[in-house]
Amino acid sequence: MADSLNCDLNSLSPLQLFERVTEQGEKVRALKAGKAPKDEIDAAVRMLLSLKLSYKTTTGQDYQAGLPPKDLVLINNGTTKEEDEDLVDPWNVQTSSAKGVDYDKLIVRFGSSKIDTDLINRIERATGQKPHHFLRRGIFFSHRDMDQVLDAYENKKPFYLYTGRGPSSQAMHVGHLIPFLFTKWLQEVFDVPLVIQLTDDEKYLWKDMTIEKAHEYARENAKDIIACGFDVNKTFIFSDLDYLGTSAGFYKNIVKVQKHVTFNQVKGIFGFTDSDCIGKISFPAIQAAPSFSSSFPQIFNGKENIQCLIPCAIDQDPYFRMTRDVAPRIGQPKPALLHSVFFPALQGAQTKMSASDPNSSIFLTDTPKQIKTKINKHAFSGGRDTIEEHRRYGGNCDVDVSFMYLTFFLEDDDRLEQLKQAYTSGELLTGELKKVLIETMQPLVAAHQERRKQVTDEIVKQFMTPRKLAFEF
Amino acid sequence: MADSLNCDLNSLSPLQLFERVTEQGEKVRALKAGKAPKDEIDAAVRMLLSLKLSYKTTTGQDYQAGLPPKDLVLINNGTTKEEDEDLVDPWNVQTSSAKGVDYDKLIVRFGSSKIDTDLINRIERATGQKPHHFLRRGIFFSHRDMDQVLDAYENKKPFYLYTGRGPSSQAMHVGHLIPFLFTKWLQEVFDVPLVIQLTDDEKYLWKDMTIEKAHEYARENAKDIIACGFDVNKTFIFSDLDYLGTSAGFYKNIVKVQKHVTFNQVKGIFGFTDSDCIGKISFPAIQAAPSFSSSFPQIFNGKENIQCLIPCAIDQDPYFRMTRDVAPRIGQPKPALLHSVFFPALQGAQTKMSASDPNSSIFLTDTPKQIKTKINKHAFSGGRDTIEEHRRYGGNCDVDVSFMYLTFFLEDDDRLEQLKQAYTSGELLTGELKKVLIETMQPLVAAHQERRKQVTDEIVKQFMTPRKLAFEF
Repeated sequence: MADSLNCDLNSLSPLQLFERVTEQGEKVRALKAGKAPKDEIDAAVRMLLSLKLSYKTTTGQDYQAGLPPKDLVLINNGTTKEEDEDLVDPWNVQTSSAKGVDYDKLIVRFGSSKIDTDLINRIERATGQKPHHFLRRGIFFSHRDMDQVLDAYENKKPFYLYTGRGPSSQAMHVGHLIPFLFTKWLQEVFDVPLVIQLTDDEKYLWKDMTIEKAHEYARENAKDIIACGFDVNKTFIFSDLDYLGTSAGFYKNIVKVQKHVTFNQVKGIFGFTDSDCIGKISFPAIQAAPSFSSSFPQIFNGKENIQCLIPCAIDQDPYFRMTRDVAPRIGQPKPALLHSVFFPALQGAQTKMSASDPNSSIFLTDTPKQIKTKINKHAFSGGRDTIEEHRRYGGNCDVDVSFMYLTFFLEDDDRLEQLKQAYTSGELLTGELKKVLIETMQPLVAAHQERRKQVTDEIVKQFMTPRKLAFEF
Repeated sequence: MADSLNCDLNSLSPLQLFERVTEQGEKVRALKAGKAPKDEIDAAVRMLLSLKLSYKTTTGQDYQAGLPPKDLVLINNGTTKEEDEDLVDPWNVQTSSAKGVDYDKLIVRFGSSKIDTDLINRIERATGQKPHHFLRRGIFFSHRDMDQVLDAYENKKPFYLYTGRGPSSQAMHVGHLIPFLFTKWLQEVFDVPLVIQLTDDEKYLWKDMTIEKAHEYARENAKDIIACGFDVNKTFIFSDLDYLGTSAGFYKNIVKVQKHVTFNQVKGIFGFTDSDCIGKISFPAIQAAPSFSSSFPQIFNGKENIQCLIPCAIDQDPYFRMTRDVAPRIGQPKPALLHSVFFPALQGAQTKMSASDPNSSIFLTDTPKQIKTKINKHAFSGGRDTIEEHRRYGGNCDVDVSFMYLTFFLEDDDRLEQLKQAYTSGELLTGELKKVLIETMQPLVAAHQERRKQVTDEIVKQFMTPRKLAFEF
């Protein structure tokens, strides 16, 4: 048995071995949690130790939970792949590292700029406000032309904010709130107009969904967005399916972008093929157009040159790289951008949270009990396999999803630092860290649900009616 | 396997099936060329045979490489065109014959039906009106599903007319009037609503033209169209750039069509390439959408299933072959069509009149003197080289452009027949025939100019305002 196991293991790649160790570790934890018979647990532990040994023999490294043998991954032809590139586009986020996507590499690949301490300090000086913890903690980590926005702001020149969401289902999860929470803060500290695009047309084109359903999801999602606390006098939320049929300014910008982007370009940027429908192929122009103030003549009094700033997750950047390429050719200013990291799935930071997998997400509709169960059952732990090991070596905050979530939602910097130290030193156990997360998320989600209840259809209508906002242009 | 394949195949349109057969054929060739294992080739061949069978079952035709299903002929694809075939697509009309395009062949190639005496008689019976001379003289020569429109009409079911124009310049020529004059007659004898699309977005996308200029041309062209005498209570004229931003119903139909047409399909139908802008690639959906009554909720009270009849020149047929392919898949009735021949250039029927060559056309803005000079100088003659030869052998009405123009604009059948006989016998000289044409065109153009002067901006606005028409739905 042991021999045949080792024989098997020799044929495995380091990454496959890593996965086997990880699986076996989970099995051991499950057996222990389920109070399985002692001999069964012992057999599983022996197998785990054997796997760890094979891993060390093959890679020359000790197994570390959540840290795959990245620099030694063998690809099919047997040569060593030096860089294991992350896959990041508007429809996929995938990495082999439990720490998540390598964002420093992404900045280099995308050609954006890092949000450094200087920039954060400058935002603080310009607004007179303490920077949001998403900035302080590197959750918004990359930008394009934010300095220009600040130059203009310091010279009393106006700008506006644009963000959005693809309403793929009725239920939103806590990760969806990140851009909205940050945008709300930006709007408050800079006091500027905000437009929020709901791409119901995109969801209709991409998913097996009727146009009516996509449109309904847009209105339902609008309620969750409004529940973040936006000011109706300063915010315009629109569904593409509605607004395209309401504003000639919007369609004119769409067709201008469509004239200046070829199929070759969208093929390169988004990976479209000849078998894709023409709706998908032309859609990027629809996400581009709100970057130009003339798409909202009712807000900007027809003015064409108001600077736009787009806070979004980094996977949306391809749309705006395209937009920035087109902008000067249609006589418009390039939109500036602030990029966030992805919100990790409960199962680990290898992929972003997804509304289509109910167990990968904490939904805004979840009950306190569901939240507790999901975190206890699914949140990937950076803790050790046994309490003894954990006490001795400590947990790994870099891969622990509960800790990651706390960096998003626990606003108290001191408390977060205390938790990090206690977990890393082994003083705090996984179950205790999860408890802190549960106690953070439960009231947060409950408060959201309470605010959402107040959002009537009438309020949605107000936000979604094209109109002048409380700014003069 | 075969069952699930057939199940899949049943949901495909004839064109999609055609593409699947073509792709599979290529795969088989590639496998053979690559000397793939025999069983792999055999499996691919079995799949090919199964696909061909499905194709035959669906279309009633044997699969022939390069010859797509009749209702969806690829016309702009050089590989399928025989050497002597006429080139006919929305942007090009070219033939080597001075008689003009061979329309009987075109009917076979496009898979449409000839407008024969039976159909003309049926229109006369249904409307109680003498058929328009465009019908009697074969100027409208081809149709799709006109019998169904008449079936419905005889059963008191409503239908509506849809035609349009691409406003590529301010000046329209007399050839541009043909579809409008005929549409006006249809509207009068059937008493039905009419929508007229001005594709200013298309012209912006295709030409080196600003969006403002394209939009201005649309309004200028609307004046010439209105001057044909349309009833403002029964007619809605719209510019895409305006109406797309006014009607959510229109955009919804556009995006539905865009979801159901792939780049492969528009490449086959319109000859688009990877270097074309995404605006061109998605435009066909914008010309398709007015074929569905739900694009005009204000006219049809939101009703989705009102039959549409499209009178247009045959070069526009590719748009509507695509539309008819998509219609059942988005739950809409297929539009019916009436196709006209092209209006020949003064220099000869090898190509259609073009607004971009001032000498190829009689413009609606030409003075009587310009009309006289152009006809005398440029109208291609079917007469003989010398008066003596002409008297002896007679002229050739089949290639004489002056005679062709008279078939369009001289309403008196007896007079036309007299002229034909006199010219063919040699009794009437070219100069005399040209004089008849000049005397026909001068008052016609002058009267048009007089009516156009009456068309104020206010009247244009009335026609172009989305509104209910004088019909109940």
